[in-house]
Amino acid sequence: MTFDIPALDEGARREAREQIDGLVKPLGALGRLEELAAWLCAAHGSVPPRPLDDVRVIVFAGDHGVSAAAVSAYPREVTAAMVRVFLSGTSGVNVLARQVGARVRVVDIAVDGDLAEVPDEVRAFKIRRGSGAIDVTDALDRGEAERAFAAGRAIADEEIDAGADLLIPGDMGIGNTTVAAALVAAMLGLPVPEVVGTGTGVDEDGWARKIAVVQSALDRAGARVAEPFSLLTAIGSACAAATAGFLVQAAVRGVPVLLDGVFSGAAALVAREIAPEAAQWWLAGHRSTEPSQAFALKALGLEPILDLGLRLGEGSGAVQAVPVLRGARAMLTEMGRLADLA
Amino acid sequence: MTFDIPALDEGARREAREQIDGLVKPLGALGRLEELAAWLCAAHGSVPPRPLDDVRVIVFAGDHGVSAAAVSAYPREVTAAMVRVFLSGTSGVNVLARQVGARVRVVDIAVDGDLAEVPDEVRAFKIRRGSGAIDVTDALDRGEAERAFAAGRAIADEEIDAGADLLIPGDMGIGNTTVAAALVAAMLGLPVPEVVGTGTGVDEDGWARKIAVVQSALDRAGARVAEPFSLLTAIGSACAAATAGFLVQAAVRGVPVLLDGVFSGAAALVAREIAPEAAQWWLAGHRSTEPSQAFALKALGLEPILDLGLRLGEGSGAVQAVPVLRGARAMLTEMGRLADLA
Repeated sequence: MTFDIPALDEGARREAREQIDGLVKPLGALGRLEELAAWLCAAHGSVPPRPLDDVRVIVFAGDHGVSAAAVSAYPREVTAAMVRVFLSGTSGVNVLARQVGARVRVVDIAVDGDLAEVPDEVRAFKIRRGSGAIDVTDALDRGEAERAFAAGRAIADEEIDAGADLLIPGDMGIGNTTVAAALVAAMLGLPVPEVVGTGTGVDEDGWARKIAVVQSALDRAGARVAEPFSLLTAIGSACAAATAGFLVQAAVRGVPVLLDGVFSGAAALVAREIAPEAAQWWLAGHRSTEPSQAFALKALGLEPILDLGLRLGEGSGAVQAVPVLRGARAMLTEMGRLADLA
Repeated sequence: MTFDIPALDEGARREAREQIDGLVKPLGALGRLEELAAWLCAAHGSVPPRPLDDVRVIVFAGDHGVSAAAVSAYPREVTAAMVRVFLSGTSGVNVLARQVGARVRVVDIAVDGDLAEVPDEVRAFKIRRGSGAIDVTDALDRGEAERAFAAGRAIADEEIDAGADLLIPGDMGIGNTTVAAALVAAMLGLPVPEVVGTGTGVDEDGWARKIAVVQSALDRAGARVAEPFSLLTAIGSACAAATAGFLVQAAVRGVPVLLDGVFSGAAALVAREIAPEAAQWWLAGHRSTEPSQAFALKALGLEPILDLGLRLGEGSGAVQAVPVLRGARAMLTEMGRLADLA
C-alpha cells in the first residue's frame, strides 16, 4: 500500500515565523502558540491559516476479547451502553466538544452487541462483534484488518468531504488500553511492565493480569509484529486498524489531526509504519496518564499541548486543546505589529 | 490591616465530588477537571457552580526605575506604548481574551509618562510616574504603597460590582520580572541566581545585571522584607502593591481569581502575607518560563492549569485556562450519570 501524502508547506511556516516575530510582544514570548500557529500555516499552506471552525471527533467503538481476562475495572457491556450515551449527547466528550463547538460522531467498529436500536449509520462500518482475545488468539483475520483500515479511511473521507477543518480520533472500548500497550510495546520494543498502565483504574492484581495478557500476546505474535497489518491482525483490534486508516487518510487529504490519548497514540504509531509521511499531519492534544501514550508520543516526536491528568479517552482530552489552536491562529490574525508601536 | 475573608464551602466541595464520582466515566478519569469543578463548587457554595460568563482581565501598567539598569530587552518607553496597544485591542491578551469572551481593562498605576491622550479613567488610579529603582532607592514611600494597595482593592470592587464571575490580574511594565524576582527571593529566602530569569529575553550580560540589581535591592532592604508593606515600599512597585490589593479584595468578595505569570505570582505571595486566608480564592492559570513563578506557585500550593511555555505576562496565559474551567463546570452540569447507564 502506498499513499500520496502532501508535504507541509515549509515556506508558509517560515513566513509565519517572520510575521510572528513582528507581532507586538517579546520574541518567542507566546511560546507554544507561536510554534502551533506556524505549524497551522505550514499545514494550510497559507499565512494566516484558515479558521478551525469545523472540528469533528470520531469515536471508534469496539470490544476486545481481552476484556474477558478482567484487565479492566469495567465489564464489556459498558462499551455498547456507552454508544447509546454518545448518541444521547451526555458523554464526557460530548460535553467537552460542545464547549468548543465540535461535533461528535460515534461509529460501531466492533462492539460486541447488536445495537439494533441505534441508527443504521452508526453500524455502517461494523467489522465484527468484538476483536479476538489477543493473549490466546489473533485479534482479526487479515481481511478484517484491511477492511477496518479501509473503514477508517472512508470515515475520514466522509468527514472531510462534509467540511472538517480538524479531525480528532476518539475511542471507546473496554480493554482498549491493554491493546494499546501491546501495540506500543511491540512497535517500540519496550519491556511490558513499563508500558502497561492502570487504564480506567484497575487494582494491583488487575495490573498484573494486564501485563500477563500483553506478554502472552507478544509471545504469541512473535515476528509478525514487524509488519503493520500482521501486527494489527495478531495483537491489534478492529478499532486500532480503523483509527490507523483514519489517521493516514486525514494526511492524504491534508487535514490536521489532534491525537487524543493512549489509543490514538498507539494507532498513530501503526499508521506511521504504514505511511511514514502521514505523521507530519498530526499534533498531540494532551498527555494521558497511561505510560504507553508517553512512549508513543516520544517516538512520534510529539509534545502534548495539554496535561490535565486525563485518562478518559473518547477524544475528551484532544478536544480541550482546540481553544489553544484557535488562540494561536488569532494571535497571527489579530495582534498588532511591533513596527506600529508608537 | 485585617480582612474578613469567606471560607470556601467544603460541604459543597464534598457534594461535588460525590456527584462527579457518579458521572458516566471511570472514577477520576477527568483528572484536573474533577478537582477544578469541585473547587468551583466550593468557591460558589453551590453544586453545580454558577457559570463563568463574565471574565475580566485587569492589566496593571507601570514602570520601574530598575529599567534604567538595562535589565530588560526593551526600553521603558514600551510600557506607555503598550497601554495604547491595550486600548486599541491588539495586544496579546486582548486577542486571547476575545477568544474566550473575556474583557480587558488596562489601568495606569505608575507608567512613566503622561498618557495625556488616553481616556481619563485609565489614569484614575495613577500613583506616580514609575516606581523607584530598587537597587539604589525605595520603590515607593509608605503612603504610596498603601494607596496603590487600596487602588487595587477599589479596582476589584468596581469589576465585581459590574458583574465579574472570575478575575485575572494582568501586568505590563518593563522591569516587571526583576521586581518579581526580588519579591520572591525576599519572601522565600531563595538565592538570587535561582529566581532570576531572562524575562522578555535578555542575554547573558543582561541576566547578570538583573542578578546584581536584585541582590543590591535585597541588601538595601535588609530586615524590612519581613513586613509586607515595608517590603512593597523597599523593593516592590506600585503595580505589585495594586495587584496584591486586587487579589486580597477579590477574596474578601468571594470571587475566584486566576493568577497569570510571574508578576501575579509574586504579588500573590505578598497578598498572602497581608491576608493569609485570601489564597484559597486563587488558582494558577499557567506555568511561566520564569523561575520565580515556579517558586511562588509552589509556596502557594498551586499547580498551574496550562504549561505552554509562555512569558508574555498581560494575563495572556491565565485567560487561556478559562475554557478548562468552563469545561470542568460543563462536566458537572451536562454529563450523564453512571446509574442511568443501561
